[in-house]
Amino acid sequence: MSAAHSNKLKYAVFGVGRMGQRHALNVAFRTPRAELVAVADPNPSTPQWMKDNLPPSTKYFESYEDCLANSGADVVLIASATSWHARMAIDAMHAGKHVLLEKPISIDLETSRSVVNEAEKFPDLKVMVGFSRRFDESYREARKMVENGTLGKAHLIKSATNDQYDPSGFFVSYAAASGGIYIDCGIHDIDCARWLLDASLGIPNPKKQVRRVFAAGHNIRHPELVQDNDVDNAVGFVEFENGKMLVLHLSRTAMHGHDCFAEIFGTDGKVIINGNPQLNRVEIRDAHGVRSESTPTYYERFKDAFVTEVNEFTSAVLDNKPVPVSVIDALEASKIATALTHSFKTNTPVFFDEEGEPILA
Amino acid sequence: MSAAHSNKLKYAVFGVGRMGQRHALNVAFRTPRAELVAVADPNPSTPQWMKDNLPPSTKYFESYEDCLANSGADVVLIASATSWHARMAIDAMHAGKHVLLEKPISIDLETSRSVVNEAEKFPDLKVMVGFSRRFDESYREARKMVENGTLGKAHLIKSATNDQYDPSGFFVSYAAASGGIYIDCGIHDIDCARWLLDASLGIPNPKKQVRRVFAAGHNIRHPELVQDNDVDNAVGFVEFENGKMLVLHLSRTAMHGHDCFAEIFGTDGKVIINGNPQLNRVEIRDAHGVRSESTPTYYERFKDAFVTEVNEFTSAVLDNKPVPVSVIDALEASKIATALTHSFKTNTPVFFDEEGEPILA
Amino acid sequence: MSAAHSNKLKYAVFGVGRMGQRHALNVAFRTPRAELVAVADPNPSTPQWMKDNLPPSTKYFESYEDCLANSGADVVLIASATSWHARMAIDAMHAGKHVLLEKPISIDLETSRSVVNEAEKFPDLKVMVGFSRRFDESYREARKMVENGTLGKAHLIKSATNDQYDPSGFFVSYAAASGGIYIDCGIHDIDCARWLLDASLGIPNPKKQVRRVFAAGHNIRHPELVQDNDVDNAVGFVEFENGKMLVLHLSRTAMHGHDCFAEIFGTDGKVIINGNPQLNRVEIRDAHGVRSESTPTYYERFKDAFVTEVNEFTSAVLDNKPVPVSVIDALEASKIATALTHSFKTNTPVFFDEEGEPILA
Amino acid sequence: MSAAHSNKLKYAVFGVGRMGQRHALNVAFRTPRAELVAVADPNPSTPQWMKDNLPPSTKYFESYEDCLANSGADVVLIASATSWHARMAIDAMHAGKHVLLEKPISIDLETSRSVVNEAEKFPDLKVMVGFSRRFDESYREARKMVENGTLGKAHLIKSATNDQYDPSGFFVSYAAASGGIYIDCGIHDIDCARWLLDASLGIPNPKKQVRRVFAAGHNIRHPELVQDNDVDNAVGFVEFENGKMLVLHLSRTAMHGHDCFAEIFGTDGKVIINGNPQLNRVEIRDAHGVRSESTPTYYERFKDAFVTEVNEFTSAVLDNKPVPVSVIDALEASKIATALTHSFKTNTPVFFDEEGEPILA
Repeated sequence: MSAAHSNKLKYAVFGVGRMGQRHALNVAFRTPRAELVAVADPNPSTPQWMKDNLPPSTKYFESYEDCLANSGADVVLIASATSWHARMAIDAMHAGKHVLLEKPISIDLETSRSVVNEAEKFPDLKVMVGFSRRFDESYREARKMVENGTLGKAHLIKSATNDQYDPSGFFVSYAAASGGIYIDCGIHDIDCARWLLDASLGIPNPKKQVRRVFAAGHNIRHPELVQDNDVDNAVGFVEFENGKMLVLHLSRTAMHGHDCFAEIFGTDGKVIINGNPQLNRVEIRDAHGVRSESTPTYYERFKDAFVTEVNEFTSAVLDNKPVPVSVIDALEASKIATALTHSFKTNTPVFFDEEGEPILA
Repeated sequence: MSAAHSNKLKYAVFGVGRMGQRHALNVAFRTPRAELVAVADPNPSTPQWMKDNLPPSTKYFESYEDCLANSGADVVLIASATSWHARMAIDAMHAGKHVLLEKPISIDLETSRSVVNEAEKFPDLKVMVGFSRRFDESYREARKMVENGTLGKAHLIKSATNDQYDPSGFFVSYAAASGGIYIDCGIHDIDCARWLLDASLGIPNPKKQVRRVFAAGHNIRHPELVQDNDVDNAVGFVEFENGKMLVLHLSRTAMHGHDCFAEIFGTDGKVIINGNPQLNRVEIRDAHGVRSESTPTYYERFKDAFVTEVNEFTSAVLDNKPVPVSVIDALEASKIATALTHSFKTNTPVFFDEEGEPILA
Repeated sequence: MSAAHSNKLKYAVFGVGRMGQRHALNVAFRTPRAELVAVADPNPSTPQWMKDNLPPSTKYFESYEDCLANSGADVVLIASATSWHARMAIDAMHAGKHVLLEKPISIDLETSRSVVNEAEKFPDLKVMVGFSRRFDESYREARKMVENGTLGKAHLIKSATNDQYDPSGFFVSYAAASGGIYIDCGIHDIDCARWLLDASLGIPNPKKQVRRVFAAGHNIRHPELVQDNDVDNAVGFVEFENGKMLVLHLSRTAMHGHDCFAEIFGTDGKVIINGNPQLNRVEIRDAHGVRSESTPTYYERFKDAFVTEVNEFTSAVLDNKPVPVSVIDALEASKIATALTHSFKTNTPVFFDEEGEPILA
Repeated sequence: MSAAHSNKLKYAVFGVGRMGQRHALNVAFRTPRAELVAVADPNPSTPQWMKDNLPPSTKYFESYEDCLANSGADVVLIASATSWHARMAIDAMHAGKHVLLEKPISIDLETSRSVVNEAEKFPDLKVMVGFSRRFDESYREARKMVENGTLGKAHLIKSATNDQYDPSGFFVSYAAASGGIYIDCGIHDIDCARWLLDASLGIPNPKKQVRRVFAAGHNIRHPELVQDNDVDNAVGFVEFENGKMLVLHLSRTAMHGHDCFAEIFGTDGKVIINGNPQLNRVEIRDAHGVRSESTPTYYERFKDAFVTEVNEFTSAVLDNKPVPVSVIDALEASKIATALTHSFKTNTPVFFDEEGEPILA
């Protein structure tokens, strides 16, 4: 964790909505080798927020293009609305910037592919998609156990991302743009399963990493989602080409908090991550029983992972190392999420062809 | 739990293998209104075991037909090998005996149906299949929460029966006769899901309780199972006609013990049963960490349920009340297990027709 | 667990208040080698309760002396009010009966000693005090770990018996007769500590098993206890002659249930018993958090131990083996509880003399 | 947590042993309104460590006096060996610096008192002792529950600080200088108890906050401690003047990790902090059972608290607010630790006089 170098990596953050603000604060104050030099966001309240929260040296840009041209940043961290991700990422690469991109690249597979293709044209730029769970210490310990054989051979993952129920209906209004529950909510589970199960290793044709997927779901609190062909509770099954399997459950209706769970089965044992999504180390014993509070959102669960993510991306750039998660990884996860969405809509399994593409007939 | 009546219900136990012995001991010593009068088992070691363990008044029969004719039992508890269940049950009904039958009725759907048909001809006899989990206090508390609305509306169950890995390979040699993992191991999960999700209620055509199932699996420690078209790790999905869903995971390869888990999701909360399959109330903290032992087999997990099962069946007979689990329930569970097995073998979802039968094309 | 012998041990139960009823039912229906032949209790409602709950062959006696003379029992299980224990036990021994006595022998040390002295005159009779925790599977597993060295050398126990708060004030009205919180509530903790820490082994003078005790307490919900010189929350410290230590906490004010906890520290690890006093295997996750219900009283916690206690006492008599807990053990525990009570009342440590008697100056 | 101000608070860190290094890194990189300007440590390896880890602008001083005179720091964070704490703190105050001092002020009560007296002469300087648990989110949630009445009235704390056994014997060699287990290891438990039980509130004479203490201990793995009159396992009891109680257990021999536990009892419920000292959110289920890893040292347990501590001290200075923990608090904790040590050595309770001083006769 060498941290004393005088040359810090200069970041611009694009988009300071809730998550963008957190990224900006992390880059400014919690990541030793990174430095926040600029923020771009057209929202008129941005300058005031910056004044209240960021170092006074941070420059403000209304337009991201202006920021690319004039901020002097080395890296762009893109935390804007998903629909802007691909365009901003491509523009940033053309401007010679390294890119740290919030997930997903896009809700649309072809758009995601275009970013991957573009990134391949800029081999000197680091481009990473922020799959935050890969930077969480618990997922990492599980990954280490998979690698060093503590669990024997990992073969199955049961995974769940259950968001706390939001009575305000915010997420529902947002659903149409989110790509649906498999893409918006499931992409992390899918990425972690690929990573923990070595989806791209040990198969004859590494292009074809998935055999088939199957999906189903229902609405229990948000019947209005039907108009967007979406659900608030969904299950999915993925069979990888290496024979390993993922079973996932996605939900918008957890009542106790954000419950993000993974169970990794190996031939010699299993690992459970976040069996109890406890907020802290407090347990109460009173008339309601023996109980603990849960993390309300993904942020309380993964807040340290977001810092590690920036630290490691910074190190990848400054020390010229490979990025921990490539855009190829993100594209593969998108293919699976897209296939699950298709399976859900068509009530039938979706198979993958020899080129590794889902057959969305 | 009035227990003082002089007229005890007289039981004969058919089959005193490991589980039959436990049933016999329970009937003899732990069930106030039940009395063990006879045991039938052709195994030559049976008389000695009886002498060592059962009340001296218990009669021994080599042949179950002899026992039916001459034991004076009111009830037959059938704990023999599965292949004998149907024949013994039908013979017992014809001899005028109430029947408490270990699950499953049969590994074959048509044979199961024949027992159900026969039972309908004897409305005065109580016939129950021993789905032990229905008698477990924790499953019952979950069921009570479903009934009284504590969880809101239950809509999804994630369930797992993971047997401890048996390096002796005993279960593998037994696999061919067991009907495969969905029937042998999954039937309890399926029955509990039907019960907890009210699979037969609130649907327009109560004959059709299931829409479709999907299944997949792989062998990780028992490749020899392939010859029996069976696996040691299997997942399954059931969509009920009422829109509710079951996701299940069956395994023969748990390393820490018998891990039998259920998570019941409702609109207002969820319940987890047996999140930690602990053997007792002891936790150890030493060089291996903070840890607890697990129940090695289903028996340590459900031993009290087996006693309750006999007590309640006894009460159903003596007090002429409905049995808690009907043979119809068992038949419905068998249909689902059969459909899952078919889905696994054919790599395709299996749908149910309007008569409630799986379309095993 | 040989259970088939024709000669069952004949029990009479003295006192069928709440706990006596449970003992009577256990002896009647859950203990293979024991048989309930009689009940003695002057309460006029007893015959009706017996009729509703016990085998019709069970004889009723209004007077315990009559029962001793005419019931034909081999064993007397004494579950009457504590003030009757000693007299009944001595009378039973004189009548040639084995005695299984609910704890404590007496709230008075000299009375307890008189029973011990009397028992020594009847070496052919088995006399046992029912320290139920010694028969609980979790305490036994801890004891086994102490014996086989899994924990290294056990040196310290932190123990708690916290009864659920009873807003009815029943226990307060009962306090004056109970001997106070150290005797009434702490005697189990003391006995377990002696057992688990081998208080009587490896010391030069086995008569002197305790060096000193210290106690303190306060009333937080029951100020009226002051008139009986009692408290609803008490702590205590015992230093044994072998250098090992017990720290205990007794309470009448737990809000979540009966919380009975022990932590046994060894040089190689520690064991926690009943870290979460959960009622069953159900966990709820809802708007109140992640939570479980607790056992409301000691009975739900130890109900199986009471059965094991009778089974083992029965075996001690029928097979002529030593009883698992001797009256000497009970006397030693009483000495310590008495010393703690004295320390609490005098605000000073109490030391033990070379004869092993507390110096209650 | 406004963090954007251009005027950061300038820190010098005195002593960059293990804990001092962590403080220096926190001040340099994780505390938005604080800035590290200097380090003072005579250890010749310090400049190299600084070069590798700290911002290049950080000045190095061999002598702390030089640093006081020439670093331009506003604040001194003292993390040197305990024997230097008092002298450095007093010198810093005389140089006009605010002081954030690692606990304890001193192992000697009179030396501690001298720092408190000196601090009173500099009302414009903020002086705080770093009782890190007060900045931990879990202890804070417990404190909030005490304040808002969630637990009713808090009356009893059972607390434990059990350090992992160190086979290297490092701590033993260090024992003579540490003041013994009650001061070195127990001071946090004592401070938290004072804070959570409002030891200084609601008593007629606020000078006298403690009635009496009692202590005992034994050596189980470090008999050589006897020469320093110290032990590796110690228990203690504190009765506050407000009638509330603390029971504590201190140990150097935990085998599974650093186990730092607190149980706060209120009239309406209790809170347990760190019931399972888990390192992260991973649980393993394998041949060793169901298990989790523990935090190896206090640092993994409290690492975020150390950051919060600096952030809040910074805010106290910049925004001129009271410090969260005063030197008076530290002195009161020292009195109690000193009294417990005396009780242990003399085998007798220690009482406090009307001036609030322990009677160390």
